[in-house]
Amino acid sequence: MNFEEKVEKTEPIFHGHIMDVERETVQLPDGQTATREIVRHAPAIGILALTTDNRMILERQWRAPIGQTTLEIPAGKLDARDKNDRDSAEHAAIRELNEEVRLQPGHLERLYGFYSSVGFSDEYMTLYLATELTPVTTELPRDKGENLEVLTPTLDEALQLIENGQIEDAKTIMAIQYWQLMTKK
Amino acid sequence: MNFEEKVEKTEPIFHGHIMDVERETVQLPDGQTATREIVRHAPAIGILALTTDNRMILERQWRAPIGQTTLEIPAGKLDARDKNDRDSAEHAAIRELNEEVRLQPGHLERLYGFYSSVGFSDEYMTLYLATELTPVTTELPRDKGENLEVLTPTLDEALQLIENGQIEDAKTIMAIQYWQLMTKK
Repeated sequence: MNFEEKVEKTEPIFHGHIMDVERETVQLPDGQTATREIVRHAPAIGILALTTDNRMILERQWRAPIGQTTLEIPAGKLDARDKNDRDSAEHAAIRELNEEVRLQPGHLERLYGFYSSVGFSDEYMTLYLATELTPVTTELPRDKGENLEVLTPTLDEALQLIENGQIEDAKTIMAIQYWQLMTKK
Repeated sequence: MNFEEKVEKTEPIFHGHIMDVERETVQLPDGQTATREIVRHAPAIGILALTTDNRMILERQWRAPIGQTTLEIPAGKLDARDKNDRDSAEHAAIRELNEEVRLQPGHLERLYGFYSSVGFSDEYMTLYLATELTPVTTELPRDKGENLEVLTPTLDEALQLIENGQIEDAKTIMAIQYWQLMTKK
């Protein structure tokens, strides 16, 4: 089966700080024309960070798109500070752990990567497992307006937070499911 | 801790077919001002659909944001056909299974809901488990340009597709992890 949609025209819609939006006119495999609305977003990382007493790092923070707080694993976008490195996603993971929770991992392992919502966005996130956490020696500056409360639930507590709807963030549910699978092996 | 960001101004940026984009000016808890770029998107559903011989339904399709095909569980947005129902997400799940793979579930169960990328979008997806699948009696029309190839891997095959990077879609990885956890219980 031929799936390819040929891009006939790309129209820039919006150039923002955290995203660009564009509209593509594409030719479908059957020759018909259609439009596609696309959000371009920087690559990102998320971290399943486990303490030595087997608790996970969670952050409560305000999220403007839904006008309420969420519980999420440490995460962030790759930016100019990461791009000159051999493995920029790994660098971003270490940097975000420092900025957000002042911890550094003795062990950092890539679990897998995924598109967060590939129907309309190209955002690609790499999920890491971070263990052997110790306090950082040099604290990196935080982003303006980054207000965080840190929680450290056990696996059972984290599963309960999904069950009762307090955790409704995709990458965080993925990380907790992965942790549960690790534990069952 | 006070997290709330008060919205001082909302500026519409783009009104599209599948999303709206807006820029908010907000007052942070410390009194400083910041801007937030937000994608408004319809609620959506995804379906872990398991056949009677214990295989999952996967679809290969073209995704314009990344210019390549993906392997994903059946999924879709809620639309006008769903909104008058008591449980519109459930209705959308049944409709998408019909449109995309011509199957109807004897059993349909809500697993959990999640924001796909809450840093920039309000898209909320409900994940369902569908079993006791039988062919539909009435086929609903497909969306224009919806070219699909259907695959039915076993759990081991699906895990292999994550491992080798052929599955890189968040909701699909969530569904497969859930399936693996169901199987281990």
